[in-house]
Amino acid sequence: MKKEIKVFAPATVANVSCGFDILGFAIDAPGDELTLRITDKPGVVITKITGDEGKLPIEAEKNTAGVSLLAMMKELNAGFGVEMQLDKKMPLGSGLGSSAASAVASVFALNCLIDKPVNKLDLVKFAREGEKISCGENPHADNIAACIYGGFVLVRSNYPLDIIPLSAPDDLYCTILHPDVVVKTEHSRNILRKQLLLSTAVTQWGNIAGLVAGLLKSDYDLISRSMHDVIVEPVRSVLIPGFDAIKEAALSNGALGSSISGSGPSVFALSNSKEKAEKIGAAMQKVLAPLEVGSEVYISKINSNGPIIIG
Amino acid sequence: MKKEIKVFAPATVANVSCGFDILGFAIDAPGDELTLRITDKPGVVITKITGDEGKLPIEAEKNTAGVSLLAMMKELNAGFGVEMQLDKKMPLGSGLGSSAASAVASVFALNCLIDKPVNKLDLVKFAREGEKISCGENPHADNIAACIYGGFVLVRSNYPLDIIPLSAPDDLYCTILHPDVVVKTEHSRNILRKQLLLSTAVTQWGNIAGLVAGLLKSDYDLISRSMHDVIVEPVRSVLIPGFDAIKEAALSNGALGSSISGSGPSVFALSNSKEKAEKIGAAMQKVLAPLEVGSEVYISKINSNGPIIIG
Repeated sequence: MKKEIKVFAPATVANVSCGFDILGFAIDAPGDELTLRITDKPGVVITKITGDEGKLPIEAEKNTAGVSLLAMMKELNAGFGVEMQLDKKMPLGSGLGSSAASAVASVFALNCLIDKPVNKLDLVKFAREGEKISCGENPHADNIAACIYGGFVLVRSNYPLDIIPLSAPDDLYCTILHPDVVVKTEHSRNILRKQLLLSTAVTQWGNIAGLVAGLLKSDYDLISRSMHDVIVEPVRSVLIPGFDAIKEAALSNGALGSSISGSGPSVFALSNSKEKAEKIGAAMQKVLAPLEVGSEVYISKINSNGPIIIG
Repeated sequence: MKKEIKVFAPATVANVSCGFDILGFAIDAPGDELTLRITDKPGVVITKITGDEGKLPIEAEKNTAGVSLLAMMKELNAGFGVEMQLDKKMPLGSGLGSSAASAVASVFALNCLIDKPVNKLDLVKFAREGEKISCGENPHADNIAACIYGGFVLVRSNYPLDIIPLSAPDDLYCTILHPDVVVKTEHSRNILRKQLLLSTAVTQWGNIAGLVAGLLKSDYDLISRSMHDVIVEPVRSVLIPGFDAIKEAALSNGALGSSISGSGPSVFALSNSKEKAEKIGAAMQKVLAPLEVGSEVYISKINSNGPIIIG
């Protein structure tokens, strides 16, 4: 049995436009790397974390990846221990599923090393235990599910968990603008209105139904017509400097649609070519320059693999 | 040019479970028959209506089919007139899209007789004008769209109109129980709560997304898991005697799902064989017997044609 492994788990976009809490997808990069080694001493030891600017706890019981592993090892009645090193290769608190990537990397790595691997659905459940560290009780599974399955995933139901992988057009590209501002997930959730009008909800579910149909039918035009979030984006976007102009820059440069990634502050745009994706990224970034807000841009195809072994 | 035609337009199920206001499908029977004749005298004359127990107005300007035709002829700048006879072969006020069937039959019939036929989307718009007679201003298009396109249709947006035909599994059967009670569409709409919780809306759009994916992927199990309406059915079902027991009878006899058809009082159930559909119909009807409520049962495949020429 192999004793050590190094894996990569990708960043993800959750709350995809009209799909608040139910739709996510994975991108090729950035993501997290994690090295896991099986040891004789029971328990989880985090030997090192890099790339987190000292922000993440090294104690396994307080760390997203650590808690995910502990949940998995408890369920498996593991008679062994693990040591792991986490190399954060993506920004924290960016709305790109940073904690989900760490959690998924850890359980995926362990799953590759054990005799009887567990299925993807169970990996989502273990990783979701870790997400409780960063998202509180009852975390939503759209980041984790997208990270583990790759591609687009519909989380039809969070409790009980029901995950439906959705096919998508081959040439779908994602542009992500990550403005250098801090938006707390908790705050971003708290500012949402708890109630909404039935008529507004009907508009939203018409759009999410259209978006799912557009993805499955590889209908770019339908995807584009459906990418309207009339509930969450109008509220949360106030926390993102220049959001309206960033989105407008994406759309006027050929994006099929654009919205907030996760709970922000990152903004994503979908398009149907690499060339457009790059043009969109430049246009989005240009909006932030006069506001004196730094930013990074990521261009990626939709990731169809989920996590992979890299060593 | 042919001067006279006889057509059939099918009954439809709208508000399909979690798809309130956006999802409908057509069934093979029952439906309406309509005979249309082009005349030299401008205007619309309804010569006869049968099967309506004298309930429908014979004046074209007050009749759903008449108004639909008037809207279409105005748009076409028609230099001719029409006479029509409407044979209602389905119950009025049943929640099965009776007025939509009449409206669709009329514009479909005229479209078959003219030189330059208009497209389906425009037919929906003309028929929707007629629906204003029975449904008030801003009628929803899910009955009409399903009637014209056949099969399942998603009305992503009502204004502007965006209709997406959805494929569905080949062996999908529908059982409809029409209890002999009156539910006014207007009342059925007014009792709905105008506001709802965001968390409830998320549950609903997870389900509608799942239902659309299930239909497109021909995944019976996903269709079944997704057919839950947590918003409209719990409120409207109080208007239907024995609803909970009717639904339970359907589910325990093999239905994939069951809910209210349109705004009721009809209840529909989907299943994956004719045998099951018949068994479900008998079980549903049995619930109403001790309540001394008369009923009719209709068993049908999903209609994939829309309206057809029958003479």
